[in-house]
Amino acid sequence: MDYLPPKGMRDFLPDEMRQREEVIEAIKEVYRSFGFVPMETPALESVEVLEKKCGEEIRGQLFRIDDGRLALRFDLTVPLSRVASSNAFPKPFKRYCIAPVWRREEPQKGRLREFLQADIDIIGCPTMRAEAELIACATSAIERLGFSGATVRLNDRRIISAVASRLLPGKESQVLRILDKREKIGNDAVVSMLAELGAKKEDAQRLILELTGGGSNEEKLKIAASYSKEAAEDLKKIIELAREYKVSGIVIDFSLVRGLDYYTGPIFEIRLSDEIGSVGGGGRYDGLLSLYGQGDFAVGISLGIERLMALLKGRKAGKRGVFVAAVKDELYPYALEVAAFLRNRGIAAQTDLNMRNLKKQVEYASLVCRWLAVVGEREKKEGKITLRDLESGKEELVSFEQAAVKIRQ
Amino acid sequence: MDYLPPKGMRDFLPDEMRQREEVIEAIKEVYRSFGFVPMETPALESVEVLEKKCGEEIRGQLFRIDDGRLALRFDLTVPLSRVASSNAFPKPFKRYCIAPVWRREEPQKGRLREFLQADIDIIGCPTMRAEAELIACATSAIERLGFSGATVRLNDRRIISAVASRLLPGKESQVLRILDKREKIGNDAVVSMLAELGAKKEDAQRLILELTGGGSNEEKLKIAASYSKEAAEDLKKIIELAREYKVSGIVIDFSLVRGLDYYTGPIFEIRLSDEIGSVGGGGRYDGLLSLYGQGDFAVGISLGIERLMALLKGRKAGKRGVFVAAVKDELYPYALEVAAFLRNRGIAAQTDLNMRNLKKQVEYASLVCRWLAVVGEREKKEGKITLRDLESGKEELVSFEQAAVKIRQ
Repeated sequence: MDYLPPKGMRDFLPDEMRQREEVIEAIKEVYRSFGFVPMETPALESVEVLEKKCGEEIRGQLFRIDDGRLALRFDLTVPLSRVASSNAFPKPFKRYCIAPVWRREEPQKGRLREFLQADIDIIGCPTMRAEAELIACATSAIERLGFSGATVRLNDRRIISAVASRLLPGKESQVLRILDKREKIGNDAVVSMLAELGAKKEDAQRLILELTGGGSNEEKLKIAASYSKEAAEDLKKIIELAREYKVSGIVIDFSLVRGLDYYTGPIFEIRLSDEIGSVGGGGRYDGLLSLYGQGDFAVGISLGIERLMALLKGRKAGKRGVFVAAVKDELYPYALEVAAFLRNRGIAAQTDLNMRNLKKQVEYASLVCRWLAVVGEREKKEGKITLRDLESGKEELVSFEQAAVKIRQ
Repeated sequence: MDYLPPKGMRDFLPDEMRQREEVIEAIKEVYRSFGFVPMETPALESVEVLEKKCGEEIRGQLFRIDDGRLALRFDLTVPLSRVASSNAFPKPFKRYCIAPVWRREEPQKGRLREFLQADIDIIGCPTMRAEAELIACATSAIERLGFSGATVRLNDRRIISAVASRLLPGKESQVLRILDKREKIGNDAVVSMLAELGAKKEDAQRLILELTGGGSNEEKLKIAASYSKEAAEDLKKIIELAREYKVSGIVIDFSLVRGLDYYTGPIFEIRLSDEIGSVGGGGRYDGLLSLYGQGDFAVGISLGIERLMALLKGRKAGKRGVFVAAVKDELYPYALEVAAFLRNRGIAAQTDLNMRNLKKQVEYASLVCRWLAVVGEREKKEGKITLRDLESGKEELVSFEQAAVKIRQ
């Protein structure tokens, strides 16, 4: 019988894992290029730290350790807030972190219970330059992966709260939670739920129309101002600044809510296509740090690696590196010499560990490598290699250095 | 009050984390250069999978989830065995994995409860070429980090088992567990414990002398052969092959035991200095895969990132990147343009998010960056940058391209 990974979790076999590492490396490079620095925290946190701001739904999804005191983190923002609230980093403190988080989601949702987030956060910046930079940096990272046409949906928690408060004063957070479900359950269900909560059906319907209505950003900024002047001002600034970063595709969308409890200002979500939904999102959470120590301004964005990987799935991972086959065992030391030379030039080079005949070595090489180097008596005598391109089948006798140049091309 | 990370676990702040990422990246590069490919598994495994081969001590150290069925992995070898035993990879299957593992160690040992391992394993190879390659690859990785003078201690479980069986037939595993403690508790304590277990004191003393005695590898191979001919043959081959890889410093050491239960053949340990102890180790575990499915030959080595990081601690992480300061707010778009240009050339570039005056910007820049670029009206008019070296204090007016060249040097 086979032993499987835990429910909702996955093994990443080499082809996929290689692509995953390339994606992570590309995102890191872009994050670093904007001056973000890495910081990491343990996978486990005290339940006390996590529960300070995880909301009812996620509280039920924590993987708790049997001592009752620890649980696996459900995001990277809460641990960051714990650390940043008790360390005197120069501000703004700009950190990145690409690491797994764990949530015991219901399997029917098709979501993984262990998934990788790629976060950037800015602590200690009150201005909208932070929001604009995060959006620019995250969309750059997505572009680096080869995607184009990202849409950034933009809203503000102050607007949603004002909307909710006008509809059902005192029940803002319940209204918010219902609105957050709209994309999954549809407008009608939301209207019914709001009615159940005490809203007039017509008011709820009018509200949904307003939240989901079309119109230019300029038109929406006017509506926004009728709910919250400050929020409208901030959204305007973000849009203006994003233009300086050459970010296009920003759309104010009042129907964007985002589930997490801790947002206090602008919120955003990045989409690449309607099928796949959001590939990232974030927002301002100025109140979070003060729960753990010294309060400060804070804003962050998180890219979902699993979603991005799903979009990349069609792309084929090419074979790499070279297999150095010795035509007989006595030539193994020469094969090792060739391999060592190539490795020193940054090329992945392997030799036959299993003492197989040449035919078997070639079979294996064609499964795992892009190139084949064959070494026999003649090659050894001349200090050369017979190099075969395993795609075209062409081969030629070359020096070590010529082989390195060819393979690296 | 401050909230701390869980007991025995650590936050990695930016300076240390940057060095950690460099170490991980360097090791990965070397692993890849030998043709190893990445494969990862979830942090959690079923307790059933873990307990099949974790030994009594580690069983008590598992971080178990409160559902009773899952626990955090305590090493990377057991999950690899689970996957490899049910997947038909081309053999030999050579994988690397650099990832955290968790053990609830007693705090007095000064060990972390979450620590990073950097493993390479070869599945499906019966020959000692696998052992030699692993040792060559791991020592190359250590050299890449700037260390020299690594010693590789070499022994074989078949020898230790024969030794134990001659001393106390039928009590091999208890003897092995006592011998494994020798370095921590000393020779005398080991002799007492073996005597308690039923050995004659003189026999136990003679055994310790033999295990810890000096002598050349050639002399020790003769002693080895008196316990196990096959083991002696294998150790000889490893030493010969390692020479072809230019690995020096291999020493047969009969006192090497290694705690883990699953080893069946050659075992090895890499040391850089006596104070820090082992920075890595591994061995052959041909029996492990069959516990999970299809059995196969297997051998692996694991570098301990925490130990290596501790040895690197003296090295200072230099500042990096450039801060582009605008002398007034109206010039912020020009600063963004400069920063975007530099980022496109692979340089980490930041701008002022907090709308501070020039003095404050320069203060911040000198805390977090290696270079400062100042842009005012004159610079904008001429399409240039005033670039200041924050180490030497020198500054000059340069073009974007000249700035990029200077910073990248």
